Amino acid sequence: MAGSTLGIIYRITTWGESHGAGLGVVVDGCPAGLALTENDIQLYLDRRKPGQSRISTPRKEADAVEILSGIFEGKTTGTPISLLIRNTSQKSRDYSEIADCYRPGHADYTFDRKYGFRDYRGGGRSSGRETIGRVAAGAIAAKVLREFGIELFSYTKSIGPITVSPERFDRAAALNTPTCMPDADASALAEKYLSDCMSSYDSAGGVIECVIDGVPAGLGDPVFEKLDANLAKAVMSIGAVKAVEIGDGIEVSTRNGSSNNDPFRLENGKVVKTSNHAGGILGGISDGSQIVLRAHVKPTPSIFSPQNTVNRQDEEIQISIKGRHDPVIVPRAVVVVEAMAAITILDALLVNAGAKMDHLKAIYKS
Amino acid sequence: MAGSTLGIIYRITTWGESHGAGLGVVVDGCPAGLALTENDIQLYLDRRKPGQSRISTPRKEADAVEILSGIFEGKTTGTPISLLIRNTSQKSRDYSEIADCYRPGHADYTFDRKYGFRDYRGGGRSSGRETIGRVAAGAIAAKVLREFGIELFSYTKSIGPITVSPERFDRAAALNTPTCMPDADASALAEKYLSDCMSSYDSAGGVIECVIDGVPAGLGDPVFEKLDANLAKAVMSIGAVKAVEIGDGIEVSTRNGSSNNDPFRLENGKVVKTSNHAGGILGGISDGSQIVLRAHVKPTPSIFSPQNTVNRQDEEIQISIKGRHDPVIVPRAVVVVEAMAAITILDALLVNAGAKMDHLKAIYKS
Amino acid sequence: MAGSTLGIIYRITTWGESHGAGLGVVVDGCPAGLALTENDIQLYLDRRKPGQSRISTPRKEADAVEILSGIFEGKTTGTPISLLIRNTSQKSRDYSEIADCYRPGHADYTFDRKYGFRDYRGGGRSSGRETIGRVAAGAIAAKVLREFGIELFSYTKSIGPITVSPERFDRAAALNTPTCMPDADASALAEKYLSDCMSSYDSAGGVIECVIDGVPAGLGDPVFEKLDANLAKAVMSIGAVKAVEIGDGIEVSTRNGSSNNDPFRLENGKVVKTSNHAGGILGGISDGSQIVLRAHVKPTPSIFSPQNTVNRQDEEIQISIKGRHDPVIVPRAVVVVEAMAAITILDALLVNAGAKMDHLKAIYKS
Amino acid sequence: MAGSTLGIIYRITTWGESHGAGLGVVVDGCPAGLALTENDIQLYLDRRKPGQSRISTPRKEADAVEILSGIFEGKTTGTPISLLIRNTSQKSRDYSEIADCYRPGHADYTFDRKYGFRDYRGGGRSSGRETIGRVAAGAIAAKVLREFGIELFSYTKSIGPITVSPERFDRAAALNTPTCMPDADASALAEKYLSDCMSSYDSAGGVIECVIDGVPAGLGDPVFEKLDANLAKAVMSIGAVKAVEIGDGIEVSTRNGSSNNDPFRLENGKVVKTSNHAGGILGGISDGSQIVLRAHVKPTPSIFSPQNTVNRQDEEIQISIKGRHDPVIVPRAVVVVEAMAAITILDALLVNAGAKMDHLKAIYKS
Repeated sequence: MAGSTLGIIYRITTWGESHGAGLGVVVDGCPAGLALTENDIQLYLDRRKPGQSRISTPRKEADAVEILSGIFEGKTTGTPISLLIRNTSQKSRDYSEIADCYRPGHADYTFDRKYGFRDYRGGGRSSGRETIGRVAAGAIAAKVLREFGIELFSYTKSIGPITVSPERFDRAAALNTPTCMPDADASALAEKYLSDCMSSYDSAGGVIECVIDGVPAGLGDPVFEKLDANLAKAVMSIGAVKAVEIGDGIEVSTRNGSSNNDPFRLENGKVVKTSNHAGGILGGISDGSQIVLRAHVKPTPSIFSPQNTVNRQDEEIQISIKGRHDPVIVPRAVVVVEAMAAITILDALLVNAGAKMDHLKAIYKS
Repeated sequence: MAGSTLGIIYRITTWGESHGAGLGVVVDGCPAGLALTENDIQLYLDRRKPGQSRISTPRKEADAVEILSGIFEGKTTGTPISLLIRNTSQKSRDYSEIADCYRPGHADYTFDRKYGFRDYRGGGRSSGRETIGRVAAGAIAAKVLREFGIELFSYTKSIGPITVSPERFDRAAALNTPTCMPDADASALAEKYLSDCMSSYDSAGGVIECVIDGVPAGLGDPVFEKLDANLAKAVMSIGAVKAVEIGDGIEVSTRNGSSNNDPFRLENGKVVKTSNHAGGILGGISDGSQIVLRAHVKPTPSIFSPQNTVNRQDEEIQISIKGRHDPVIVPRAVVVVEAMAAITILDALLVNAGAKMDHLKAIYKS
Repeated sequence: MAGSTLGIIYRITTWGESHGAGLGVVVDGCPAGLALTENDIQLYLDRRKPGQSRISTPRKEADAVEILSGIFEGKTTGTPISLLIRNTSQKSRDYSEIADCYRPGHADYTFDRKYGFRDYRGGGRSSGRETIGRVAAGAIAAKVLREFGIELFSYTKSIGPITVSPERFDRAAALNTPTCMPDADASALAEKYLSDCMSSYDSAGGVIECVIDGVPAGLGDPVFEKLDANLAKAVMSIGAVKAVEIGDGIEVSTRNGSSNNDPFRLENGKVVKTSNHAGGILGGISDGSQIVLRAHVKPTPSIFSPQNTVNRQDEEIQISIKGRHDPVIVPRAVVVVEAMAAITILDALLVNAGAKMDHLKAIYKS
Repeated sequence: MAGSTLGIIYRITTWGESHGAGLGVVVDGCPAGLALTENDIQLYLDRRKPGQSRISTPRKEADAVEILSGIFEGKTTGTPISLLIRNTSQKSRDYSEIADCYRPGHADYTFDRKYGFRDYRGGGRSSGRETIGRVAAGAIAAKVLREFGIELFSYTKSIGPITVSPERFDRAAALNTPTCMPDADASALAEKYLSDCMSSYDSAGGVIECVIDGVPAGLGDPVFEKLDANLAKAVMSIGAVKAVEIGDGIEVSTRNGSSNNDPFRLENGKVVKTSNHAGGILGGISDGSQIVLRAHVKPTPSIFSPQNTVNRQDEEIQISIKGRHDPVIVPRAVVVVEAMAAITILDALLVNAGAKMDHLKAIYKS
């Protein structure tokens, strides 16, 4: 089934495998008249590139984007924007071992069961490289949103047992630490933790948080196209994510209504809330507060330790996964979460344009 | 925007407000040839009805379903099944107070901002009664799934600080305890806790778990129509849900790969896993194991305690919410979570029918 | 498959069979704030009711609409509008003959092949009564469109060999003649023609034209959601329609470019065209001129003359169809074509709201 | 809006402009396990290439396709197939004249009104080159369909006043004549006619017919996803098409029921029809007969004769269109119609896989 398209008005279609010719995305429904260059997109793609630090794979990926359509005289034309990123550093090597076996924690087995066979080179379509198209589309969405005063910020909240401290929280740091933590001290601890993981041939998970400021009240469509429902889908569709929280998330289940409700009050004549446990969404519709979501990311399933598994010939075997692998997925997934959130918010904003007669009359003055 | 439709092949469209003429759902795409009666649906609807216990609202709702179309000689015809549930017990009372103010934790403010005004009677479309259509559609989905050996079971895992004990876990109990807990002792404690909440004019949250057995490997479509992504959307779209977990969910973020990966092994010549941290889904595709998900539900926002808020005239006011309210949403939402899961799994099963040439040739023998 | 839903933002879901409990439609995505009563819808439904004249079936159908949701204080709330029309005049009679055989020109055979069996009472879902939901949804769409100065007018252009004369064309007549022809003389001739058809136990076809004034330039989305493509789908989806033309339609194939192109010119400073061969659509986008389309409708397949066919037991048989049948579908389908056009234009108008940054900034003043 | 995606299970997304970097399509939902090479696609693309004859533009277009994803070891993997066709022969020339004016019969004016500006080089997204993605996707669809014994054949039925003769009809000729007419004599006459058109600086229209054999009964989904409705949309979405007919099409409006109905009979124990006025579709569902459709194509709007129009500065002007233009669109559009039909039939076949419980049980043996 066609599962590679997302969105109603701002609609993205991604394609590509880890070791094929390349990866890309078609962004359809981007409003016409936005100034857009390859650099706008490259900045986002560079954020998901492996860095030079110890905690990231040493392989070099250029991941240079080429805009193939949809831009004229530097502006979006309203027609599909096709983006291409060639695979360049994927060496052809011997995949016969993983071709034949089902790596634990990977999608090898399920792809084989679903499709009858699979592109086993580097995980094929289930590779983390699949997210390149998402990030490229998210870069464009984020640029559109900035025109409406909407800003996204995402960062690593924790890696294994190491969590950023609210006291040392520093937005600027998130773009500079190799962990994408907005707390240099926590980041140093996390690097140490990851180094230990690698020494024991193991990997780690973590938590990514994304906050979105400036979203006007009114986005999201009851009852199935609720903003939180679509954010949950968008973020849960990222490979290694196993849980999604909105606002205070799992904590609400142990709360009482009196402490969980966010009272409304006036601030300079504007309705605001005195707290934001809801994470900016009430009844599936944005309430004008900061939107807050978190993604829980599993540890990298590729580990060097020997593991028990089964091969395609239905034999029980033991494997040790070779090759280059990040000990943690989180830092490189931070921009992916941000991209998915941007795509979802923009689509809701476009869809909402026709929500009431007043909106429409502002456009079509009959 | 049209947000009341969900699904690709098995597609449901719900409608209705708390105090309008009724509520309902159109179920389109149900395979032809399924035996179906109103009783099949009523059994599910009865599970979300308020009971007679202390922890549920004393109001009586008949919620009797009428099948208006799509069934002939006792079987589904393949054409849309329209279901109607008349509102009967909704008394017309004075809503002038809530008509005018924004109740904390409710969607009053956001509906007003989105649409310019709202049906304020009992929450209108944002009422919990909106889930009636979901449950009715889920009853049909669950019946189809049973034909393929797929069984869903959902229950209350915790209410406030009270959690069911794995040792005392008893599936049968979940259908008998007023809390829907599969543990009579925990249920008694939870009832006591809720009674205390009510005494202090407050409310509680909780956690619902749904497990699904018998799902064949291969359901779910990379990369955006992943089974876990669609489950997350379906469940997060339920009013009070603020977090969704798949498998071990949030716990994976503090795990290592070596303990989080599920090794494959053979059992009677069949590939199985020795553990199920993944909750039955790998790479967005079912792996043949039990599917496990959890929804975190916020406390009922309607509480009797006085709360600060703002009215439509932009005045800061204090309100005390009157009327009949459950002190906890969880027990009545258990069947809603199950329904949304059933709808999602069935749609994935139908969509997957065309995944490979072999499937198609089994149907169309050319 | 779920084939009973149409539209992206203004989305309708119809349901119901000829002899079931009733028929209806859920209209989702209607902008909030439109004044709407049951009478607005009933006026359209009455236009498809059988009249009292000789050329229409003598059966009486009340077809009274009930609004079940989505309206509050006389205005649309932005949530789904559910409409119910109970079947009241469908007598239970002996259907054993048609239950068993495949009527030529009907969908009996194809429904049986697709679904394995069918609701044979009065054609079930393939009955002309299925269009009731379309007309009800079209009535609402047309009311929204009028708020933007968009007016639809549809009429019978021909019945069998009788065509309306451009010289005698009179819009008002179309609502008064039993044929819906805007030409009383042609209508009288057509009535005579139909009377002759009935005498010879036969039926007739015809052509319906729909013109739409006031559509702003810019509606329709290249390359698959073109306005003409969606109009073609909407109109071809009406039971008996076998061809759809836009503008000059089939005539363009024998034209030259010099005579088929519509030159642009200025009129009071506004860009207009000196002719309208294109029927108001260029490149799939409305050009601000009158939109013109035509539907070619086949003769009623139910005729009293004996016909050869096959039954479910694979025996060749001869049947003579009994019961009440219009000798021509066209007059009652006029409002159906208009409804489908209204639904399509409104959806394009809503979808187009997000086409360019300027539009969006008119709504979201950041 | 995202208008460049079509289909539910077999879903295509096209992109690209006449003079941008290239054009392409992402084909998602193609069943896994189909042998597929670039040559399979190139054969279709070559059919829409301009030939060497007098009636086609002398420009040379390589239009070589590159498969970027979705194929592994020579077979489709079930994941998106991305196809790229670089623009190579588009010379950069002076477009300042057409940049500024609205060519009659083209989409210049409507794109400007919709999006605020447009890519004016060679028509941008509204160029005939847009169909390259459709043809590539259609080539794949046609290959899948052949595996089920479904064969498509399309050809030029008429050009201007010249129509192919049923007596001289020869399928093989359609692939050899420069007009794609299956009648060498008619083709010679049409070439002469077109030559005359060119001499008078004018252009011609025509009719394309597509017939599809081997379609099993049961495809198409009432009431909006009817097979004829989706064929009408698919074909009407091709740039210059102004009318679509199914079966006998416009002729049915002047017929009687007795002559238009197709009687059923038995042939070797199989239900067949003695005639096929319906064109293989009854009630929107394929009936097992040959599917027949026709597209009416307008004359090329680009003509050398001077034409009156308006420029972007709202001045009335006269233009003479320079450059290379086919005097008729029809021969190159033949394969486009065939491609759109193939895409539509395949999607209906995949969607229908879940229509009845029996189908599903053939796949999922529980």
